[in-house]
Order: sequence, then C-alpha cells, then structure tokens
Amino acid sequence: MNAKPKHITSLHNEQVKNVVALKKRRARRRTGLTVVEAKAELRAAFAAGVRPRTVFYSPDLVNDDEVSEFAAAAGEAGSTLVSVSSEVFAKMAYRESPDGWLATAPLPERYLDDLSVGSDPLVLVVEGVEKPGNLGAILRTADGVGADAVIATDAVVDWGNPNVVRASKGMVFSVPHASAGLAETLTWLAEGDIRLIAATPDSARFYGEVDYSGGVAVAVGAEHAGLTSSLVEAASERIVIPMIGYADSLNVSTSLAVIAYHAQWQRGGFHKR
Amino acid sequence: MNAKPKHITSLHNEQVKNVVALKKRRARRRTGLTVVEAKAELRAAFAAGVRPRTVFYSPDLVNDDEVSEFAAAAGEAGSTLVSVSSEVFAKMAYRESPDGWLATAPLPERYLDDLSVGSDPLVLVVEGVEKPGNLGAILRTADGVGADAVIATDAVVDWGNPNVVRASKGMVFSVPHASAGLAETLTWLAEGDIRLIAATPDSARFYGEVDYSGGVAVAVGAEHAGLTSSLVEAASERIVIPMIGYADSLNVSTSLAVIAYHAQWQRGGFHKR
Repeated sequence: MNAKPKHITSLHNEQVKNVVALKKRRARRRTGLTVVEAKAELRAAFAAGVRPRTVFYSPDLVNDDEVSEFAAAAGEAGSTLVSVSSEVFAKMAYRESPDGWLATAPLPERYLDDLSVGSDPLVLVVEGVEKPGNLGAILRTADGVGADAVIATDAVVDWGNPNVVRASKGMVFSVPHASAGLAETLTWLAEGDIRLIAATPDSARFYGEVDYSGGVAVAVGAEHAGLTSSLVEAASERIVIPMIGYADSLNVSTSLAVIAYHAQWQRGGFHKR
Repeated sequence: MNAKPKHITSLHNEQVKNVVALKKRRARRRTGLTVVEAKAELRAAFAAGVRPRTVFYSPDLVNDDEVSEFAAAAGEAGSTLVSVSSEVFAKMAYRESPDGWLATAPLPERYLDDLSVGSDPLVLVVEGVEKPGNLGAILRTADGVGADAVIATDAVVDWGNPNVVRASKGMVFSVPHASAGLAETLTWLAEGDIRLIAATPDSARFYGEVDYSGGVAVAVGAEHAGLTSSLVEAASERIVIPMIGYADSLNVSTSLAVIAYHAQWQRGGFHKR
C-alpha cells in the first residue's frame, strides 16, 4: 500500500468512459460488472466477499481514514485503487451528493439452481417488480428478516442495476437471490417441500391467521397487476393485508415487509439467533 | 357539461407556465397549490373532497369514459376543465409516461391544532423524513392501517410536493397529517393521553412485545440519524425491529409499516371495521 495510486483527471480517459458506460444495462451485461457507489454500500460488498475490479475515490471528498480502510480492503480483495479528480468523480457518480467512493464489481447474477437454502427456509417471492428502489428495499427487508432467499419470477429483473445496489444498501451482494420463470420457481419450491403462500386482495384471510412454520415462500406482486393468477392458483394458501382506508394496496416492498416480519416472528425466527 | 372545454396548444400560455412553476416549492407556497397527476391520484383527491382549481387533460392520451367521469367530478367540485395538446401536457407532467390527467389543487397543509383524532387513537410519528417517496409511502401505510394521523416532527416537511402526492397515491388528501416541532408534538400527545412508543436500534425490546392498546403513537426516524435522542428519551417505551442480517436498519417507511401493522393487529383494529 506504499505505491501512490494512479490519478485520473481527464474526462476522456478510457477507464472513466467504461465506468460511465455501465449506466446502460447492455454494458453491464457485456462486461459482467456493475457500479457500487458510496462507503456503506462498498463496505457491504467487501463484507459479502465481493472482489471489486477497481475502487475509485476523489481525494477532495474523502478523508485519510477512509483511504486507509478502503486501500486495505481493496488490497485484500485484489482490487485496483484509483484516485480521480472531483470532476471525473462527478461524471461517474449516480448520486447528487457523492461521498467520494465508487467501485466497479462483478454483477451479482444468480440462478435458481445456484440457490442453496437451509432446512425449513423462509423464501420471499416477488412478481412484476421493476423499480430499482422497490427491488432494493425488498433485498434490505430480506436481509433484516433473515430470509433464506429472494426469487423474482420475471427473467428480466435487473438485479445488477446500480440503483438496486444503492437502494439495497449493498445487500444485493449478501442476500441470496435469483430470477426464474414461474414454472421453474414452482418446481423448485415443490422439490424443496416449500409451501407457497400468496398475498392477494381477493383473499379474505388475514395474513396473521395462517401458519408460517416449516419451509414457506411468501409471494407478493407489484402494484397494478399484483400477482399473476397462475401464481395465486398454485399457492397452497392465499392471504390478504387489510386495507382500512381508501387505497387498495400498499407498496410491494412494504407489503412484503409486513408479511415477512410477521411470518418470521410467528416462526420464532427472531429468537433463534 | 355541453360547452366544449378550452384547448391550449401553446407552451407559452400563462396557465401552462403557472403549472410548470409549481415544480418549485416557492411557487407552491405562494399560490397554495400543488399538482395532482394521473387518474388514480385525481380520483383519490376527489374522493377526499378536494376541489381542484383546474383539471387538465390531453385528448390524445385519454378515452371518452374518462373525460365524462372527470368532467362530472370537476363540475361538482367547481373545477375548470381544460384540454391541452400532448406537447403541453408533457411539459406539465412529472411522469415519464403520463396518463393524460393532471390537476392543480389546494395544498393539503395542516397544523397540529387542526388534527382531530378519535378516542384511543393510533398515531404515527416520523422524524427526519425528507424523501418524497418515503413520505408518500408513509401516508399510504397510514391509510392502509387505518391510523388516525401522521405527524412529522420537522416543521419543514413538504407535504405538498407533487412527488409526495404521487408516492402517496393521493392519500395525502385523505390521511390527517401535520408538521410540528418536537416539543409541541409531545405536548399534544400528553394532552390527548397518547403514549409514545419509539423505535430505536438501541432498544433490546422486540416491537411485538409491547402493549399497543389505548391511545398510542409509534415513532420512527429516517435513516442515518434515526430518531433524535430527545424523542427517544421522551418515549414511554422503546422498541426495536430485529435485524438478522448485515444491515443496521430498514427503510423508514418499511419500519413504520412493520410496527404499525403489528400494532393495529394487536389492537384488534382490523376486526372492528
């Protein structure tokens, strides 16, 4: 850590252009990389064992302690540390008030067959979630509640979107997750002896009244469409979150949190650890 | 409703400029107006008794049934109906894919003294919430759980921000809410005999283990800072949402939903209505 890191000041530098290009999904797919911005998210990535390709920082925005901390982490992970001018940093950053840290890291893309869950797992299933903010919040809830995995039954979900990384506070690197078609998901659940419990406004059964013990997957759908009828029909139980007021549903990540926390509480999962 | 509504095609029209100006908080404060965009939000506003000043629509984006529906509602509420070109509509709209409906309406600004809650109310208190998306989600949760009121202990909270209107799905018009300083809020709670229960990571008491009966206010703080120590110290009970994973907290609106739904469930509030 004695060598002074490379310092980039040109907006036309190839490395800078490559980071900026990662704002596009196509570039992320081609390179297999995403962007992790800000200290907290970068710490979460390192903690989850991610090996960033390059860690960039803007000396004007950071302090010496941070440089020591991330230089050490980057060294251990085999990442290159690069210093850039504040102008260059602003061009690469997603946030309006960046904290001076940003890295490129392998996309956390995983498939259903890669998921390994414990016995009697708590799995969260989501359908139709497109907004990165919602997907990030769902990953954060999954982390908090100690879910075994998150499955999106839409093959196109963009887990590697830098805004998902951000909204998840970096939890996308540690929470096991996968995208898969509905049929494939149902087979995976059946093979794992995991009961499917689906939230739908068409049910009259209060979510607090069902049994969440054993292997269970709770499923919620994004607004407007909600869960597809194929998923609702395949579920062994259908539940509803009561809506007392005018609105017909909560935000998808809020719904999932309400049910998942209740389920884990009923399972006694908060006392086991 | 026989007269054909006025049709605006010029981007330089004064009325159009006035709507665009409402993107700025200062213009909203000066005029006392906010912008309500999209059908669902506009319906929620009408249902809550709001009287929009002007209801704009783009004939290219809407259908005849919608025009009849909103022309009738606007007529009853004394609102002017104005047709605009799609170019003009795009200039006024906040969304990337607007549905052709948008209105100007009085700001839902309310003060603590204006709030009237029932006996044994369930009140939600939030601190430090700045993001319109979070504030909107909190209002939506308050609507769903049937809370009596939402109080933000920050005088500067911008309830009338069009993005709050949007994220709340229009619930900002029906859910009683107010901004007030912490001291004023504590006095109001004490006078109403409402116990304050504060969520803080420093508590070891699981949120499911406290008694939510009677008049209670549950308080959560926004990320980073969380609740101020003054509020936490003033609370009669301190609770924690267990975090099993790496992250130290959930999103503020998610936290509030988890606690509020549990509280209302424990209170038997979902069976009373």
